[in-house]
Amino acid sequence: MSERPPAAGSGEDRLIARHFAPLARHPGALGLADDAAVLTPPPGCDLVLTTDGIIVGVHVFPEDPADAIARRALRVNLSDIAAKGAKPAGFLLAVALPAQTNDEWLAAFARGLGADAERYDCPLLGGDTDRTQGPLSVSITAFGTLPAGTMVRRSGARPGDVLIVTGTIGDAALGLTLRKDERAGASLTGAQRGHLLGRYLLPEPRTGLAETLRAHASAALDISDGLAGDLAKLCRASGVTAQIEVGRVPLSDAANALIAAQPALGERALTGGDDYEILAAVPAGNLDALRAGAAAAGIAVSEIGRLTAGNAAPEFIGTDKRPLAFQRPSYSHF
Amino acid sequence: MSERPPAAGSGEDRLIARHFAPLARHPGALGLADDAAVLTPPPGCDLVLTTDGIIVGVHVFPEDPADAIARRALRVNLSDIAAKGAKPAGFLLAVALPAQTNDEWLAAFARGLGADAERYDCPLLGGDTDRTQGPLSVSITAFGTLPAGTMVRRSGARPGDVLIVTGTIGDAALGLTLRKDERAGASLTGAQRGHLLGRYLLPEPRTGLAETLRAHASAALDISDGLAGDLAKLCRASGVTAQIEVGRVPLSDAANALIAAQPALGERALTGGDDYEILAAVPAGNLDALRAGAAAAGIAVSEIGRLTAGNAAPEFIGTDKRPLAFQRPSYSHF
Repeated sequence: MSERPPAAGSGEDRLIARHFAPLARHPGALGLADDAAVLTPPPGCDLVLTTDGIIVGVHVFPEDPADAIARRALRVNLSDIAAKGAKPAGFLLAVALPAQTNDEWLAAFARGLGADAERYDCPLLGGDTDRTQGPLSVSITAFGTLPAGTMVRRSGARPGDVLIVTGTIGDAALGLTLRKDERAGASLTGAQRGHLLGRYLLPEPRTGLAETLRAHASAALDISDGLAGDLAKLCRASGVTAQIEVGRVPLSDAANALIAAQPALGERALTGGDDYEILAAVPAGNLDALRAGAAAAGIAVSEIGRLTAGNAAPEFIGTDKRPLAFQRPSYSHF
Repeated sequence: MSERPPAAGSGEDRLIARHFAPLARHPGALGLADDAAVLTPPPGCDLVLTTDGIIVGVHVFPEDPADAIARRALRVNLSDIAAKGAKPAGFLLAVALPAQTNDEWLAAFARGLGADAERYDCPLLGGDTDRTQGPLSVSITAFGTLPAGTMVRRSGARPGDVLIVTGTIGDAALGLTLRKDERAGASLTGAQRGHLLGRYLLPEPRTGLAETLRAHASAALDISDGLAGDLAKLCRASGVTAQIEVGRVPLSDAANALIAAQPALGERALTGGDDYEILAAVPAGNLDALRAGAAAAGIAVSEIGRLTAGNAAPEFIGTDKRPLAFQRPSYSHF
């Protein structure tokens, strides 16, 4: 049918043009109208690469707002980039959409994604859009840059290093507890419930701490599978063990209130997932400088324990000076 | 429980350690034991980034072998990298696994992935593993490198350029026809059926042509949504139109035999998806050099038409000199 006007492309092309191309203002995105994106790394820099996905029904609830799902998907990746000491450089988006996904949902999703891409200076560079017979899924691959050879690894911690965490621990896991059972939060104020639920839905990647970590931390990771489980990973990678003073683990007012009402939830705060705070090992001599960098970035850091030689499991020491025994030490979807 | 030995990690950690860590021999993969991978781009190079996914039931059949699913997922990305003129540099793998995925399946999947990572010199750098209640899905993000500013785009074609394709066109779409209806291949020999089915299951990325494309093509893309649809994309991006001589479009013996028995399938060869051959625009003066480069790489190229000024839809001219009218000009999952 050579007489008709040029085809506007497939349904996928139209969907991309309508919702995602307006976000792709970075020149390397080529307007999402090519097979690939192009990224020119700054001279002398390494690229840090990470990929993390969200599946509706596994990582988020089907009724979660589309814009929050998009922002969460980007933020969990930015959290990895930050923990490694890198500056965001851009991301690729792969979405698998059930047939019933409507235009309004996609518009809200793109709005949330665009807002965070701007907020964290991490442009959309490209992607892939598919139909699925399964649940909606969003897989993001994010890129960060840093001076060559300076990525903060899990494996650099040494005995004597101090362990610090950013922000507060356990809010997201307790927020998830409230999502699953509203009555669990009966003793909380509305603001406290809102705090925990919000921390579950929308993590705050600590991008502002990246440069400070690179300068002063010996090892770091972001806490996605729970403080206890991720600390064990850092210790295994570094060949060290750790003692955490549970009384020094920073908890929000809301978390404290919920745990006061239901002491059994204390373990959940230490072992539950989705904090997206940073756990770092810091040589004692760097601690002041790290604190200063964090303060300048407006990010709270708390000293929670210390690394020691050995390959035993890390210990969480209670206020009674005795080690805690966890029922379920780490969160995993498997 | 501080008395027990260090935990071996979560189920996800064990799965990664067993099946995927052995593939991650590139130093930047950090043994898949960190939050992110690190890639040091060669000085003066751009990175080409692409992501493409496979969902069981959408892009492949549930009964397709695990190793072929893995190889196909990597190859469709390598096809993009090649079409852009880049050399593979590595990839990230995101898999979402239904609960019933067993160890044997994963071992075969990892085996296929490792074989192709080696074959195409494209190492596994990192990834993400999730459980899903939906179908199994594999999303790969692949990286390529090339001298800065030299990526072959869709948009560089000019009137007067010659259109070339690699290999043969339509085999995969006809293979899919046979997969869906065995009787469709009744007139073919077993070897012919095997050829078409194999071309559907396992594309051959034209990585050997990348440097030649970069040196001599003005525009290129890989044909994933069918020759007609992808040609229309190249023309729209470049602001040109095209005339294809259908008689010059290269078909395999098996495709010719099937179309001879069922002439209606001729359109499907030109419009069906999954060729993963390369369509390129080549300035007439570069044609000999491009042919020489392709010959040196052992890749067949065929001249199929020419680009002209204008923004009409590309024309496919039949052997009777009249333009064809397609029923369904392009393949799309949407």
